[in-house]
Amino acid sequence: MTSIEPTAAPETDICCAGADCELLPTVEADVLAETFKALADPTRVRLLRYLAESDAGTACACHLPDALGISQPTLSFHMRKLHDAGLVARDKRGRWVHWTVRPEALAGIKTFLDLAPRSADRCC
Amino acid sequence: MTSIEPTAAPETDICCAGADCELLPTVEADVLAETFKALADPTRVRLLRYLAESDAGTACACHLPDALGISQPTLSFHMRKLHDAGLVARDKRGRWVHWTVRPEALAGIKTFLDLAPRSADRCC
Repeated sequence: MTSIEPTAAPETDICCAGADCELLPTVEADVLAETFKALADPTRVRLLRYLAESDAGTACACHLPDALGISQPTLSFHMRKLHDAGLVARDKRGRWVHWTVRPEALAGIKTFLDLAPRSADRCC
Repeated sequence: MTSIEPTAAPETDICCAGADCELLPTVEADVLAETFKALADPTRVRLLRYLAESDAGTACACHLPDALGISQPTLSFHMRKLHDAGLVARDKRGRWVHWTVRPEALAGIKTFLDLAPRSADRCC
């Protein structure tokens, strides 16, 4: 009986052994993606940097539209996104909201971004 | 002549001095936001982590659909997003593409994420 086992074709099908790594749990991937999504806008990137550069990481909402060149509704929209992701804290002082950056909220994505390819001798 | 200068109403209008910080340049904010956008999806987050956990940060496209539980077209869609953002490199070996994570491409956003609120005595 002739073998019908496929033969390797190294010229056209060079492959590697499949990695057998544990996947990042779905819930963890979802949280990381949500945080990245909150940062996936140039105005929010600039707002976060502006807050971080302000005294004690805090700025009054009254200054932000002029500083960023955006309208108050646009500011509200973006600050809500940052707040929902936990990246800023709000504090109402009189009639103005003051926003403070929360760098500790970035800890999760900073750890994720320390991606270092494994060398062959420490494969999972 | 009676002064019509507005008077401060400290109970209802407590405010701070406006920060006078230099804004992040638009081009720089755009690049950062584009990189965050490439990461703003749980499948891409898992793919990047999977590559980083594989030998030398490289995995063959033939293994990725089964490993991630996604179809080959879905894989192609997400790898294109990661590749366009410079987060992975591709290398064709025979008929299969091998993908390698490029952690150096994350340097820009890692620097940005080192947001540390300024204390009052080192205001810009």
